[in-house]
Amino acid sequence: MVASLRLPSLTSLLFPATTRYPATLRRTLSLRNRPASGFATASNSTASPETKSSEVDRLRSDQAVTPRSQDFNAWYLDVIASAELADYGPVRGTMVIRPYGYAIWEAIQEYLNVKFKETGHSNMYFPQLIPYSFIEKEASHVEGFSPELALVTVGGGKELEEKLVVRPTSETIVNHMFTQWIHSYRDLPLMINQWANVTRWEMRTKPFIRTLEFLWQEGHTAHATLEEAEKEAKQMIEIYTRFAFEQTAIPVIPGRKSKLETFAGADITYTIEAMMGDRKALQAGTSHNLGQNFSRAFGTQFADENGERQHVWQTSWAVSTRFVGGIIMTHGDDAGLMLPPKIAPIQVVIVPIWKKDTEKTGVLSAASSVKEALQSAGVRVKLDDTDQRTAGWKFNFWEMKGVPLRIEIGPRDVSSNSVVVSRRDIPGKAGKVFGISMEASTLVAYVKEKLDEIQSSLLEKAVSFRDSNIVDVNSYDELKDAISSGKWARGPWSASDADEQRVKEETGATIRCFPFEQTQGTKTCLMTGNAAEEVAIFAKSY
Amino acid sequence: MVASLRLPSLTSLLFPATTRYPATLRRTLSLRNRPASGFATASNSTASPETKSSEVDRLRSDQAVTPRSQDFNAWYLDVIASAELADYGPVRGTMVIRPYGYAIWEAIQEYLNVKFKETGHSNMYFPQLIPYSFIEKEASHVEGFSPELALVTVGGGKELEEKLVVRPTSETIVNHMFTQWIHSYRDLPLMINQWANVTRWEMRTKPFIRTLEFLWQEGHTAHATLEEAEKEAKQMIEIYTRFAFEQTAIPVIPGRKSKLETFAGADITYTIEAMMGDRKALQAGTSHNLGQNFSRAFGTQFADENGERQHVWQTSWAVSTRFVGGIIMTHGDDAGLMLPPKIAPIQVVIVPIWKKDTEKTGVLSAASSVKEALQSAGVRVKLDDTDQRTAGWKFNFWEMKGVPLRIEIGPRDVSSNSVVVSRRDIPGKAGKVFGISMEASTLVAYVKEKLDEIQSSLLEKAVSFRDSNIVDVNSYDELKDAISSGKWARGPWSASDADEQRVKEETGATIRCFPFEQTQGTKTCLMTGNAAEEVAIFAKSY
Repeated sequence: MVASLRLPSLTSLLFPATTRYPATLRRTLSLRNRPASGFATASNSTASPETKSSEVDRLRSDQAVTPRSQDFNAWYLDVIASAELADYGPVRGTMVIRPYGYAIWEAIQEYLNVKFKETGHSNMYFPQLIPYSFIEKEASHVEGFSPELALVTVGGGKELEEKLVVRPTSETIVNHMFTQWIHSYRDLPLMINQWANVTRWEMRTKPFIRTLEFLWQEGHTAHATLEEAEKEAKQMIEIYTRFAFEQTAIPVIPGRKSKLETFAGADITYTIEAMMGDRKALQAGTSHNLGQNFSRAFGTQFADENGERQHVWQTSWAVSTRFVGGIIMTHGDDAGLMLPPKIAPIQVVIVPIWKKDTEKTGVLSAASSVKEALQSAGVRVKLDDTDQRTAGWKFNFWEMKGVPLRIEIGPRDVSSNSVVVSRRDIPGKAGKVFGISMEASTLVAYVKEKLDEIQSSLLEKAVSFRDSNIVDVNSYDELKDAISSGKWARGPWSASDADEQRVKEETGATIRCFPFEQTQGTKTCLMTGNAAEEVAIFAKSY
Repeated sequence: MVASLRLPSLTSLLFPATTRYPATLRRTLSLRNRPASGFATASNSTASPETKSSEVDRLRSDQAVTPRSQDFNAWYLDVIASAELADYGPVRGTMVIRPYGYAIWEAIQEYLNVKFKETGHSNMYFPQLIPYSFIEKEASHVEGFSPELALVTVGGGKELEEKLVVRPTSETIVNHMFTQWIHSYRDLPLMINQWANVTRWEMRTKPFIRTLEFLWQEGHTAHATLEEAEKEAKQMIEIYTRFAFEQTAIPVIPGRKSKLETFAGADITYTIEAMMGDRKALQAGTSHNLGQNFSRAFGTQFADENGERQHVWQTSWAVSTRFVGGIIMTHGDDAGLMLPPKIAPIQVVIVPIWKKDTEKTGVLSAASSVKEALQSAGVRVKLDDTDQRTAGWKFNFWEMKGVPLRIEIGPRDVSSNSVVVSRRDIPGKAGKVFGISMEASTLVAYVKEKLDEIQSSLLEKAVSFRDSNIVDVNSYDELKDAISSGKWARGPWSASDADEQRVKEETGATIRCFPFEQTQGTKTCLMTGNAAEEVAIFAKSY
């Protein structure tokens, strides 16, 4: 159990002495929607920092992270605070992404950025201020986004003639510019991406999952034919899928959204749906075939090889900082965060252990050599050599932070020229191996092998959790049973939008997707008994 | 001369057929503040794209880039349009950074991001929406920034209780959060950085140099002592200086700003000042010692080793997409952009040349091998093998794009197993070397050597241009002469703010900095005749 991290407690983050908000606003700032309980103590203690350091290594069980099984949401918020991933910003629903959380986002960026470039996309940047009239041009787009807009109405001290939208997504301004750049079929395909912040006035916010402002990448492409656009939209959901599986160990289910759940302005939305630890679904990335909806609204045309003017066919696709939330909620446990090695900012933490000062030099020098060896082998390694904390405190702290492997080095290990290696994903003694040689090539090989094992093991565990929580259903009653027992329901579906809406109202579940992977054979719609071509997956979701 | 690039012409970017702006707004959108002249023709032609391709290789002198010597500003805007670096966004003063311009920004990011991390800074992200009350907390900060603010007053369809500022800079929100994270001296130094967009309601805008929204990095640090903060502020301006010299070949002059020119909220502002091709100064980066101004305004305190509460000492520092403008205006010439190899998205372009179809295969296959060889040696290389353009068109196009080296391969080169190499920085035959062996190791070595030579040569040229345009002055008359002849004036200065203001009003020049590099010996203020400790540099600036 992690306790009394010296970092600001949850409550101190929410109710700092200096905050001048009215109580109502303060309530909305609360990470959890419940009165501050255990954390109030910590908050009081941080108000007088001079007494704080003396308390720091004292275990205070009332500050431990809420057990995941007890209250998944409270657990999630506790982990975010204790692992120092994010804080709330001063404006309701905004989030400060702290260095450790941001480093996970950087790992996501690094991987995807390479894939986007390999598949022919260039990065660029569009302004975030969009004339309000743009949003109104595509009918379903304005319907989908207008309730969520943040509007700039004053600039440089003056009321603006036309109010400006702070970018909630960029299809409109992208099309405005594409219209100027695209003239002939030779200008196609035009394939770009931007890494940017977007703003949506969400009412119910949750760190990483749904915030007023978030970071994402948005790809936008224009093609000469529907077929090319469709191929692109599918290619990008495939890249997201591989990323989710291989890097984040999240076994997402890729598929197509129902008409009701399709992006405002798209013909088809592809999605990857992930099962969180509480078995709610998280839409972790989407790729849209926009058809000609925006090109018709904005007049984005090209002259084809016969000189005929045609509207371009388009796609857009995005993943966001929400993915960080998905990683937390897929792999975390009662001890905190658990990071897949490939995405972990720190893959290995070295904790040197000594009691007497005479032992310190030998232990630290061995620890440094081990760090050097791992670092030069490309392993992301941290040596926690502060003497302000006990080894036990450090164990808890780095477990909370989800570091995949811990190397412990004490005086006896130095004598035997070996180290102890502990896996984050296997708690207690079962995950601990003694006597691994300190010799560089042996240790490096061992560590790399273990990191690979952890990566695979996290994925396997998530796959088996996912599969054991999807129920195949053939009737609405079965669907209702599955959903009410917290599971996902998968069953043949060819019913109406109204029926889909009814399922949502009666069960709280929505169609997450028609998965790409379909079972063979004839199917009968679970709702209507009519023939169905596909199975759909129903689940409650974030 | 580059002509009739197939890309959208300047005018078509500004007056697209689909734009629904009133004429007044359209005028403000114009890249140049003059009636569209030659470019109107191009615009008309793009309106009927089917006729466009036939005209594409025709030289139209009325579309050539304005000569730099004739009108520096028009040249600058023409280069940005023709080299496809940026366009205006639909909102006055906003800018779309196109892939080629963005790739230069990515090169800047890549270098600085590593340096920031090496010096102990972590990336993170703060929300861009800041409560208006925050901005008012630091007196000189609000005075400096309030005329430039963009305000969000409506969110989710409702008028907001407190208007929100779209981040013009983040000192206030950073301090709000620092106050919650910093408790004891053990939490210090706290050193972070963010890559972000910022919004300032500028009245006179110019692409890259001053836009309503721009991209930058902003570093923010908190320290236990003034000395540490001062050391940090100086370290960061030193990193910027090295970056400018070594990567961008811009011989900036680092120094301290005068009191009048200090950042709103800082005690000391350090700056790097660059001389553009028109001899105007560009402030290319700043690093501020903020003292305790923000920590006092926000109550950012820590308990020192004796348990006493102290306000932290802070710094902030930034460079922005403005640097891209600095690169254009330092090195560009009448043929367009000229990029220092280290920052060039494409370092080498290969142009294969053939007339008969029988020659094509051999030439293209040789060109591909050359590309492979360079690419695997880490050179950023592009093979322009389209057959829709003539070789001459390609030469002009890639010169306009500022690619440092061009490799030409024709049938005769294939026979002799050699290539022709042309330097962008030495026009015409003087920069062309024939008969360089195609053999991989020879060619790679030759190319790398040439790239290094070009990098050094651009810096030397810029240094000598800079030095021949700085005049040492010892009286106000001499200063006025220097400024009116378009040069920079460097002279001893210990006069008052009022005197500094008078110089600005009478000459248009401001103190750019008191340079770190000072001459020895006694000095007499050029204005008052009193003793002076330092020389200052005066210049007109962007």
